[in-house]
Amino acid sequence: MNYKISNNVIKRLPRYIRYLDLLASEGVQKVSSGELGSIMGITASQIRQDLNCFGGFGQQGYGYNVAQLRDGIAAALGMGDRLRAVIIGLGNLGKALALNFRFEECGAELVAAFDVDPDKVGKSIGAVPVLHVSELESFIRDNAVDVAVLTLPQSMADGAAACAVGAGVRGIWNFTGKDLGVELPGTSIENVHLSDSLLTLGYYLRSDGGKETR
Amino acid sequence: MNYKISNNVIKRLPRYIRYLDLLASEGVQKVSSGELGSIMGITASQIRQDLNCFGGFGQQGYGYNVAQLRDGIAAALGMGDRLRAVIIGLGNLGKALALNFRFEECGAELVAAFDVDPDKVGKSIGAVPVLHVSELESFIRDNAVDVAVLTLPQSMADGAAACAVGAGVRGIWNFTGKDLGVELPGTSIENVHLSDSLLTLGYYLRSDGGKETR
Repeated sequence: MNYKISNNVIKRLPRYIRYLDLLASEGVQKVSSGELGSIMGITASQIRQDLNCFGGFGQQGYGYNVAQLRDGIAAALGMGDRLRAVIIGLGNLGKALALNFRFEECGAELVAAFDVDPDKVGKSIGAVPVLHVSELESFIRDNAVDVAVLTLPQSMADGAAACAVGAGVRGIWNFTGKDLGVELPGTSIENVHLSDSLLTLGYYLRSDGGKETR
Repeated sequence: MNYKISNNVIKRLPRYIRYLDLLASEGVQKVSSGELGSIMGITASQIRQDLNCFGGFGQQGYGYNVAQLRDGIAAALGMGDRLRAVIIGLGNLGKALALNFRFEECGAELVAAFDVDPDKVGKSIGAVPVLHVSELESFIRDNAVDVAVLTLPQSMADGAAACAVGAGVRGIWNFTGKDLGVELPGTSIENVHLSDSLLTLGYYLRSDGGKETR
């Protein structure tokens, strides 16, 4: 299989996973590009173009095997090889992610959370321990942590990110709402910009309404 | 100005706002498509193509006026006309949004939050009152609410969305992680899929690293 896939296709792969899971849960075993496009709100030709990278899961006029296509995309996304993640900052957002976000459905595993609040440190949240941030570096080293989830105040984000990357983290999931102000060569960074999402909603709502973004 | 803008451009407009605000905060008054592209990580030609919709803010070889371009994009996004929003569900995520998310920077205003927990109802969170969900419909009607933010458990999301839309809401910002299972014609829906974001990060981290998504 060819793993050289364009960035735009990569961005769409998680959506394919979601919709293929939905089909599988309904007992659907085969799906045509037209059917899949119709539930995903994209064209059949876009689907065929995207999934060409995953050759072997579909035949003209026959459709895709839902389970095989799902597995192929999951393999391309590396979901089988579970990433170890820590949350840095247990404010409301950090707590929400620690307690409600399904890391395991994204090929990840939450292994610890960090904060400075003495009322939180030493306890646990969900199934993971809450440690003091002074232990961040040694914990990351000792536990081969892959991903740091930044849910701490923006003013502390650069320092925490640099510390985490220095200790071996290779991915940053940044919820601070601002790009990091520190250079982290070789590190993958995903900036979550909820404001972009609300602005997009506002545009559609004001222009004509009725647009669902997926 | 032509407001017929493609969906892909719309999705990028909030990013332009963010980077133009950054430039303005640094005192930059003019920016070329090349410079803007370089800080945003996209090509100059993509920038020129996107911003053609906002004719009049740039001249070949001269660059864009940062403040005017920002205002033009903000106007296209409708940011001047403030949307009234309510949060439905004050768990950790709802609390995080109520206390930390800057609605006003997205052309919106949080006017109330709703929950069923007697320990929360009747109090306030940040600057807004916490009301019982039984008051949702009348509150939306009386206060001309535009947007419902769904941060409640998934099992209750469809009912709350239908109630909100029935009372006059035209936009749903859906944080439940699943698409709504109810038809809401004429309603704009923005589904926030944090799992897509983590899966994308995982892909880049595993493939070669060093990719920052903005």
